[in-house]
Amino acid sequence: MERIMLRIEYDGTYFAGFQVQVNQRTVQLEIEKALKKMHQSDVRIHSSGRTDSGVHALDQVIHFDTALQLDEPTWKHALTTLLPKDIRVKSAQKVTAQFHARKDSTRKTYRYIVLNQKEHDPFRRNYEWHIPHSVDVERMKEAAELIKGTHDFTAFAASKTNVKGDKIRTIERIEVQKQDNRIYFDVTGDGFLTHMVRIIVGTLIHIGLGKKDKACIQEAFGTLDRRVLGLTAPGYGLYLKQVDYE
Amino acid sequence: MERIMLRIEYDGTYFAGFQVQVNQRTVQLEIEKALKKMHQSDVRIHSSGRTDSGVHALDQVIHFDTALQLDEPTWKHALTTLLPKDIRVKSAQKVTAQFHARKDSTRKTYRYIVLNQKEHDPFRRNYEWHIPHSVDVERMKEAAELIKGTHDFTAFAASKTNVKGDKIRTIERIEVQKQDNRIYFDVTGDGFLTHMVRIIVGTLIHIGLGKKDKACIQEAFGTLDRRVLGLTAPGYGLYLKQVDYE
Repeated sequence: MERIMLRIEYDGTYFAGFQVQVNQRTVQLEIEKALKKMHQSDVRIHSSGRTDSGVHALDQVIHFDTALQLDEPTWKHALTTLLPKDIRVKSAQKVTAQFHARKDSTRKTYRYIVLNQKEHDPFRRNYEWHIPHSVDVERMKEAAELIKGTHDFTAFAASKTNVKGDKIRTIERIEVQKQDNRIYFDVTGDGFLTHMVRIIVGTLIHIGLGKKDKACIQEAFGTLDRRVLGLTAPGYGLYLKQVDYE
Repeated sequence: MERIMLRIEYDGTYFAGFQVQVNQRTVQLEIEKALKKMHQSDVRIHSSGRTDSGVHALDQVIHFDTALQLDEPTWKHALTTLLPKDIRVKSAQKVTAQFHARKDSTRKTYRYIVLNQKEHDPFRRNYEWHIPHSVDVERMKEAAELIKGTHDFTAFAASKTNVKGDKIRTIERIEVQKQDNRIYFDVTGDGFLTHMVRIIVGTLIHIGLGKKDKACIQEAFGTLDRRVLGLTAPGYGLYLKQVDYE
């Protein structure tokens, strides 16, 4: 048996998320269907972590075990042929039997894109969150600084989260950049809770719109109360941008 | 009664084209539904010309007559609220009762986008035609020159076309530009037959791939035979880019 690691990209619009769900089109199902065709038996894949419905990935990592003896270019070519066009295999690599897509990941970066102009953009409606009002980017940058570091992010997690164990995470980097009419939020951390990036972005946007003060962030770390923060930004503006390993 | 002209933009992906068709989602239907809500009676709209299923518009013009007395910003705002997000109203303008969106149009420009690289782009699959093989842009530019001017474009029309009258049209401008991994075809003319731009692009691409020689273009003008040309490029790479009036 060999273990194969794939780096993939996908447009999340027509998936109910990465993880298999009954009667839903998911990224995992599409890849497992393709692998089943190649193996004539079920193949389970493991990802670096799931993405929600509508959320995109520029870099997602999965691994699976196989008895097929194919070289890396052949894996990439075969899967490219079998997979639907809203998924792209960036690379296929043979890894050791000890490699694990989720457990070995040291850091992930998410990107969130906001379209900040009066007019909406029909072509980008599933790829950016349209905020038609004026947003104070400097205020958001200041607030973002408070999120950096190691904190208990309980308040930044969806209440329905089933994440076990502590909710302490380290945000190594968080950048807010405006380019023309887009605002890009880049968040790098050692782990993320359910909806964490979307709640961070929703909160920063509320602060940028003047609806909240950055003090709500410290309050959130202190009280662990979801309700002191902003709303959860929609999934279609979110991209899993990079997954790092040692 | 007043006549209103709208300039609109739409992502053609989830429309069966502009023109109303039974049991299909169309741009015309969506706009007429919105206008019906505002008027409490049926309103017919007239466009500069129809676009096919999947074809996009960066600039499409329509007109309709109304008894409602609203100013231009109110027309734009009300329709923006009522229309689905894959349509955008760029502007609303009061015009004379003699204005006609189709008959008064002097010239139209279409843009076609080809993604020319080995890897497909999941995010652009409904917006660009992916050609993974090497394309000779210089050969295409030379061939494009032959298309310019006034010709009988019968061979460049879908055989099923119901265009009446002569098929003589004037292509005022045709440009082929490569930027990074995209090739942009811009075609400006005084009128277009069914699938004309897509057949022009499909033919130029065949010439660029070395599958055909530019001589097929002169042959097409001489024989008026569709079969000497290349295939019809897919609709999702096509954009109605600009509609001009005096």
